[in-house]
Amino acid sequence: MEVKARAPGKIILSGEHAVVHGSTAVAASIDLFTYVTLSFATAGNDDSVKLQLKDMALEFSWPIRRIREALSSLAAPSSTPTSCSIESVKSISALVEEQNIPEAKIALASGVSAFLWLYTSIQGFKPATVIVTSDLPLGSGLGSSAAFCVALSAALLAFSDSVTVDTKLQGWSIFGESDLELLNKWAYEGEKIIHGKPSGIDNTVSTYGNMIKFRSGNLTRIKPSMPLKMLITNTKVGRNTKALVAGVSERTLRHPNAMSFVFNAVDSISNELANIIQSPASDDVSITQKEEKLEELMEMNQGLLQCMGVSHASIETVLRTTLKYKLASKLTGAGGGGCVLTLLPSLLSRTVVDKVIAELESCGFQCLTAGIGGNGVEICFGGSS
Amino acid sequence: MEVKARAPGKIILSGEHAVVHGSTAVAASIDLFTYVTLSFATAGNDDSVKLQLKDMALEFSWPIRRIREALSSLAAPSSTPTSCSIESVKSISALVEEQNIPEAKIALASGVSAFLWLYTSIQGFKPATVIVTSDLPLGSGLGSSAAFCVALSAALLAFSDSVTVDTKLQGWSIFGESDLELLNKWAYEGEKIIHGKPSGIDNTVSTYGNMIKFRSGNLTRIKPSMPLKMLITNTKVGRNTKALVAGVSERTLRHPNAMSFVFNAVDSISNELANIIQSPASDDVSITQKEEKLEELMEMNQGLLQCMGVSHASIETVLRTTLKYKLASKLTGAGGGGCVLTLLPSLLSRTVVDKVIAELESCGFQCLTAGIGGNGVEICFGGSS
Repeated sequence: MEVKARAPGKIILSGEHAVVHGSTAVAASIDLFTYVTLSFATAGNDDSVKLQLKDMALEFSWPIRRIREALSSLAAPSSTPTSCSIESVKSISALVEEQNIPEAKIALASGVSAFLWLYTSIQGFKPATVIVTSDLPLGSGLGSSAAFCVALSAALLAFSDSVTVDTKLQGWSIFGESDLELLNKWAYEGEKIIHGKPSGIDNTVSTYGNMIKFRSGNLTRIKPSMPLKMLITNTKVGRNTKALVAGVSERTLRHPNAMSFVFNAVDSISNELANIIQSPASDDVSITQKEEKLEELMEMNQGLLQCMGVSHASIETVLRTTLKYKLASKLTGAGGGGCVLTLLPSLLSRTVVDKVIAELESCGFQCLTAGIGGNGVEICFGGSS
Repeated sequence: MEVKARAPGKIILSGEHAVVHGSTAVAASIDLFTYVTLSFATAGNDDSVKLQLKDMALEFSWPIRRIREALSSLAAPSSTPTSCSIESVKSISALVEEQNIPEAKIALASGVSAFLWLYTSIQGFKPATVIVTSDLPLGSGLGSSAAFCVALSAALLAFSDSVTVDTKLQGWSIFGESDLELLNKWAYEGEKIIHGKPSGIDNTVSTYGNMIKFRSGNLTRIKPSMPLKMLITNTKVGRNTKALVAGVSERTLRHPNAMSFVFNAVDSISNELANIIQSPASDDVSITQKEEKLEELMEMNQGLLQCMGVSHASIETVLRTTLKYKLASKLTGAGGGGCVLTLLPSLLSRTVVDKVIAELESCGFQCLTAGIGGNGVEICFGGSS
């Protein structure tokens, strides 16, 4: 019995930081995925839960007996998403600590905790092997932890009574709307273990795919009516998201009027951007014209992010490099390093893309290209896909 | 009989471009000057008007007879500033063309025309020699043409019946308020010949010195209550001011809501900046704290200018270089090249300043340091000063 699930990462197209101050932001899925393969041990073969993080060559394993002992207070598998109690958090932490995660990878501990919580909550105390691989760099703002929680929830739910899936289907298939809702809630519970108080944007985008407009906690799903491709440059500069958010808030306290106008400008930009992406193609407005408008909005948003003080020398290097090729870029996410988006117009030649990438990589950056706004989580039964 | 006049250049501290769309801007004088020395030929010695542009090793000369012939329609020296009629513009152009200005310096022609107009309007048809030197790079947005018109008007008026000056005073001395008003009007007439429809900001700052807050054509003079020093980096990248202004207007048509918020943000920044500079020093707010606030406002303004699309790779290079030394910078004037301001905090060591300058000059830029908001036009009789 084996199921493979994949869930996409996300980017913030516009509105990061300003969204904290009431502006609209737009997030989108990217066709870079985290894959989770779940296989149940054939009876009597093994009696443990194994988690393999292939990209990092790490494997963790817990005897079922040990998990049952640590989480004895857990009821039978739950059909409704529940939060991890403080007591369970402690028990799970103990299980994670036993695995002696290497010091350099200690950031993974909360993800392993989320795994144990979701696994035992949805599947109870069954032996199984879970293998994780991912296209997404970790901790760079591309929603890798949410993609993990979503793909994991999808795989776990696929073999539960909570959702209805046809295990005979060939290739990648999607869930029904109500199953997605359940899955998204479970993934959010996992995200809470990893991030404390996540916004819920990342798991929602990873679950449903496409795009999401969000403002003051309200999410609106958007279906893009145009293809959109981005170059995602990971500056690999680590950043402190909390400090960056706090910096913007402090600047807002010092300059309330100016910053309020800045946030309003970002709000306008997010709404314009969403409208352009949603509006059906027409003879009057070609894809190229739409792309040019999006590029201008990205440039404007980037200027406003600089005004908020969240850019970084590494980001500026990416901006300058892509500008040489007349490509528009903006930081995505927290800023202060992290990732930069560059729109790749549909008519741009592959040669130019290769040149830009070569130049950016020569600066030590990591480049990924991604289609924007595609499918959310999908599953595939039996065999590789 | 000799008089020397000097008039300062100017910088825009905040609000360039946005001012075209109704926001407040702040301009300030810089202690970099254009010097005009006027000496009347001793009787019978010579019978021409000579203009020497020392920095460019250019000299122009017109026999008085020739000037009188070309401008016969001019009344006797005028005591009130008058605009140059279309007819006179043509006659003056003919006088300028006779001088065979080298092709590479042809941009000077309008300045020479302004000279002839101001000279004949204020002094009539008297032989004299006028020598011009300047600290200001030409055509880089530092108000060199206005400083020329102001210094020239000052020298010419000093020997007219229109103003009252004490020719016995030693050293640089200032004009009375009503004389400054007259002088400013004359200078504006010269600026009109050079620029067509100048805003009047440059000549006003050069005349009165200090700072000026302006919005929708209303000028308010500001007296700074703190010393302020800037590094001015001339990228030497020529720019097309009209095209840059038009670009911002086009962007505003495409994104009226977002841009209107951007202009409002700039308006707030200009007003905050003016308040900080004007507010008297107190125990509560040290000069350093004021400087930090100004730096933050400069960074914000620069982000908003980037949002308007008027930055340039050369400007970004200056920003990155100064940022390495934790110094705040913004473009000044039209952008798209031109000059960049970097605030030099009062406690910054000379060693750091030298390092920054060395690094910027190694990029091919020209660096000037200037005190901000000092005196306007001044004159000095007899002898060098």
